[in-house]
Amino acid sequence: MNITWELAHLAHVELLTPKLDESIRFFTEILGMSISEINGDSAYLRAYDDYEHHSLKLTAHKHSGIGHFAWRTRSQESLENRAKAIEQKGLGIGWEDHECGYGKAYKFRYPDGHICELYFESNKYKAEGEHKSALKNTASKFPGRGMNVRRIDHLNLLAKDIVAFRDFQFGVLGGRMSETIIFDDEPKGIWVSVNSKSYDLAITEDHSGLSGRFHHLTYAVNSREEVLLAADIALENGVFIETGPHKHAIQQTFFLYLYEPGGNRIEIANPTARLILDPDYETVVWNREERMKGQAWGLKTVESFHTRGTPMPEELL
Amino acid sequence: MNITWELAHLAHVELLTPKLDESIRFFTEILGMSISEINGDSAYLRAYDDYEHHSLKLTAHKHSGIGHFAWRTRSQESLENRAKAIEQKGLGIGWEDHECGYGKAYKFRYPDGHICELYFESNKYKAEGEHKSALKNTASKFPGRGMNVRRIDHLNLLAKDIVAFRDFQFGVLGGRMSETIIFDDEPKGIWVSVNSKSYDLAITEDHSGLSGRFHHLTYAVNSREEVLLAADIALENGVFIETGPHKHAIQQTFFLYLYEPGGNRIEIANPTARLILDPDYETVVWNREERMKGQAWGLKTVESFHTRGTPMPEELL
Amino acid sequence: MNITWELAHLAHVELLTPKLDESIRFFTEILGMSISEINGDSAYLRAYDDYEHHSLKLTAHKHSGIGHFAWRTRSQESLENRAKAIEQKGLGIGWEDHECGYGKAYKFRYPDGHICELYFESNKYKAEGEHKSALKNTASKFPGRGMNVRRIDHLNLLAKDIVAFRDFQFGVLGGRMSETIIFDDEPKGIWVSVNSKSYDLAITEDHSGLSGRFHHLTYAVNSREEVLLAADIALENGVFIETGPHKHAIQQTFFLYLYEPGGNRIEIANPTARLILDPDYETVVWNREERMKGQAWGLKTVESFHTRGTPMPEELL
Amino acid sequence: MNITWELAHLAHVELLTPKLDESIRFFTEILGMSISEINGDSAYLRAYDDYEHHSLKLTAHKHSGIGHFAWRTRSQESLENRAKAIEQKGLGIGWEDHECGYGKAYKFRYPDGHICELYFESNKYKAEGEHKSALKNTASKFPGRGMNVRRIDHLNLLAKDIVAFRDFQFGVLGGRMSETIIFDDEPKGIWVSVNSKSYDLAITEDHSGLSGRFHHLTYAVNSREEVLLAADIALENGVFIETGPHKHAIQQTFFLYLYEPGGNRIEIANPTARLILDPDYETVVWNREERMKGQAWGLKTVESFHTRGTPMPEELL
Repeated sequence: MNITWELAHLAHVELLTPKLDESIRFFTEILGMSISEINGDSAYLRAYDDYEHHSLKLTAHKHSGIGHFAWRTRSQESLENRAKAIEQKGLGIGWEDHECGYGKAYKFRYPDGHICELYFESNKYKAEGEHKSALKNTASKFPGRGMNVRRIDHLNLLAKDIVAFRDFQFGVLGGRMSETIIFDDEPKGIWVSVNSKSYDLAITEDHSGLSGRFHHLTYAVNSREEVLLAADIALENGVFIETGPHKHAIQQTFFLYLYEPGGNRIEIANPTARLILDPDYETVVWNREERMKGQAWGLKTVESFHTRGTPMPEELL
Repeated sequence: MNITWELAHLAHVELLTPKLDESIRFFTEILGMSISEINGDSAYLRAYDDYEHHSLKLTAHKHSGIGHFAWRTRSQESLENRAKAIEQKGLGIGWEDHECGYGKAYKFRYPDGHICELYFESNKYKAEGEHKSALKNTASKFPGRGMNVRRIDHLNLLAKDIVAFRDFQFGVLGGRMSETIIFDDEPKGIWVSVNSKSYDLAITEDHSGLSGRFHHLTYAVNSREEVLLAADIALENGVFIETGPHKHAIQQTFFLYLYEPGGNRIEIANPTARLILDPDYETVVWNREERMKGQAWGLKTVESFHTRGTPMPEELL
Repeated sequence: MNITWELAHLAHVELLTPKLDESIRFFTEILGMSISEINGDSAYLRAYDDYEHHSLKLTAHKHSGIGHFAWRTRSQESLENRAKAIEQKGLGIGWEDHECGYGKAYKFRYPDGHICELYFESNKYKAEGEHKSALKNTASKFPGRGMNVRRIDHLNLLAKDIVAFRDFQFGVLGGRMSETIIFDDEPKGIWVSVNSKSYDLAITEDHSGLSGRFHHLTYAVNSREEVLLAADIALENGVFIETGPHKHAIQQTFFLYLYEPGGNRIEIANPTARLILDPDYETVVWNREERMKGQAWGLKTVESFHTRGTPMPEELL
Repeated sequence: MNITWELAHLAHVELLTPKLDESIRFFTEILGMSISEINGDSAYLRAYDDYEHHSLKLTAHKHSGIGHFAWRTRSQESLENRAKAIEQKGLGIGWEDHECGYGKAYKFRYPDGHICELYFESNKYKAEGEHKSALKNTASKFPGRGMNVRRIDHLNLLAKDIVAFRDFQFGVLGGRMSETIIFDDEPKGIWVSVNSKSYDLAITEDHSGLSGRFHHLTYAVNSREEVLLAADIALENGVFIETGPHKHAIQQTFFLYLYEPGGNRIEIANPTARLILDPDYETVVWNREERMKGQAWGLKTVESFHTRGTPMPEELL
């Protein structure tokens, strides 16, 4: 299969948190997610329409940041092809067996140090009893709790060397670049689309000198109205709102940026009105002048958005 | 003051339920309301932006139906004026002192037997601690639970003699008739507006031969999108949906009709995009041909909507 | 009648524009309003559910700003009572006969010089032919054009002396103060409610030393989603967006501020989910610390919002 | 490439109409689409975010119905592979050169007689001047006209033999079956997904004895609120509403069914909150009992929905 289409979707993200209990409470009570399993220092959670065992793993740690993230591939063959390609680049860590939600996975590092896994075998979530939805085509019951997030949407990482990230992503892993920021011939950010969603992963330039930093993780709701309701819920529950709700010019995402108690930036968004169905979609390029206009409706990007990332823990580097 | 403006708004409704605990659970967990007080066989509840002690009283009873309802008047003077006028018509029951949420009230019967109270003194709800909203102009915190109903909206009763009801309402109590159904010179229903909302009370014809029947009680949400979310929450929780979501031609109300476990019909609606600001608004009259078109977008009215009302308990008659 | 309730609603606003044709195009093509009449240098416009002949009069002038605005009273008697009270304060200008949309009006000045009229007789708009709505309770057909604004909502003026404005409004004209900003015992802004809407008029402090300045005029749409769509329409048509969409902490208004081609600030909002039904509502007071928090979800108020008003033309002063 | 992923998306549909001018007016003024080209008896139209030259071709004809429809493939190689496979089945018609919006196409018949084309080369739409969107990632400017449909969403055909259709679709053309109705082991309908959208094509059983019939063509809007606004626009413009707005249990589509003046059924929907990202998604099967429950919130399916299809013109059979 063409390398473009070998990844199926962003599967899950492991976030590290110095306040595990409070983080769990945030994702379950405020975002409306459910716990699939608690295992040692880690909790596995999913949104009501995530079809897998979990889309979020929360692990207790002295710092916030990202532990690892995972792509599900389109097939077992795709998984093996990609593992081989990564190995050839010398970025592979190796195969691991998982018992919690998914099967054999190939672990590796992205050029900026972020740890990632590829896998195909998935122990899909089977809703039972009170968790079963009245609609057979929904993974589990609409919770009617907090922000009612529907599914994992995308991940945004920071990286020092965008060119290296880009070459690795599209030359070795797959996907296509739906949008990019280029200032004076230097790429500053790229958006990776692997299916009809316009992106599952974004990487933006890190000016801090650090490696493997996390910018934000996004959960999707069904409508812009629900993003507005989420803002009220954040306000009413003392959750810090960094910026939004507003509409990004890039990708047209209607966004709301929050911080979970562990210190990781979380976005609530409604990005799916826009889809990329065009199989040879031409990358949209944003230049400096265009970026200076701010967000879609003119909101200036808050400074912290450009600078604040969550460092990768030393022992993972 | 002009009689038109002496009533301020529909204040609360007492519903009778043979399943008090299940009814309480329905209104708190599904609708997202809170309990202000439990007193003997009655529970007092309010929606998050209801400013009074309660807008709903649930009382255990062997049948479902309405116990009483209440109007708050615009002033103490209005209360006394209206009490006098009712007394003169011979429909008065008398003054009562309340300790639960409101002060001295004048009790009386509408011509079809429904028991009603007028009062002015209100022990307004003071949100404290975790119930306090981050927005000073909201009565209490947005719950983020179930349907998140905002406030009581309106009440719909059934009556054998619409003319008698109409004459009593507008000749003795106050308000103005925003809309009416007239078939062959016979009024079949009237909508009573006492403020800028286009109605707080509706009365439609009862063909059953019974008296004092209840049709439905409505709670408002902020948007039509939230009515759609409410439909999903009803579906996911096994709540019977009688009809909707759809838009009434009459009053343009975007509606969803449910049944609470005690057997009373409850509407979730978003009716406030429409306001009547015109002080000499001319009543909108609907004839048979117009009603035959069904609801705004052509949905046929379900048969049960025309026939099913909740009887008034014998001992209250 | 109690002075509180003698005004029915904000009826219309006359805006001055140095670009009459472009302003007309803005309000008809972008906002979706209709022209009721053109008369010399003035155009009379209405939103699709405005029940009167016009809610906006656009008059050609070398500067932008407000010409006059008008309240409709609840009755002819209210009109006469208020005219007498104003006369006694020495702020009256006198009675005028209008042929364009409304009858005999009493003209006067607010303490900061703004010209205002009171009237009761209204030549209500009668939709005919293609302008007739399929819904009998809508003033005219939903346009399906541009932002589809529904009705005039409120007016915001600037005044040097908020205390004088407040005393005149509530002591002579009527209404009640739903919200106010007070810094160190000095009122900085007041919000005037005359019906169940939480405000029809706002007055905020003018630091410029000028008199009779205009801040903004607001048209309402039915939902927050339509405010978001309006933002896209503004963006697509080169209309300057000053700030928004976002939610005001004050009054909870979901706002979008634009400039029409003549230079007047126009707001598109969805303020009616909140109503004040409480007849003895206690004014919400905002202090400096609370205002420093910015808008409801934390957006900082743009500087121009505090400083930019449209001056009153010299010859009207 | 795996056959599953060789089709990229539903590209365009040709509808026949006995009232070409009125049909053009409907799609441009009511739906808000634009004309790309008029060529003889055909008009080519697109929604504002359709990236190709057209998604709808309207052709004058004495009857309503479907002329042909087209899939765009993921690559030139996919096109050639599929053409070969069809040829082997004996259902091919042959290659054609198009000058109007797309390049070399392979024409063939589905088993029930519907004419279809596959192509890869596309003359993508380049918005210029006033049609250019302020957002670089939108194909053209948001129109602010009528229903503002965003893009073509899906097509529903009728067929006598669902098994034959299914075998041809998944055995020869590609895609996967996201949902199906099966009564007593007999398939009654299938939904074809070729990308992350849960379907681009649906085929339901035809009981009429006719061949090649058309059921409906769907355009997507961004939100459920816009579907509700579309219902009002239909109502205000005398467009017949067959059923809706409501939510399908199947696929969760929030729907509104209309008829265009030529007699073809058109759906306005907001189906994209649901995506299928799972690469080995298991087909959802609906049985008779489940279908008897009606739509998601209990609305009974209107009878005409089961019976009314638009016949294929004789000369095309």
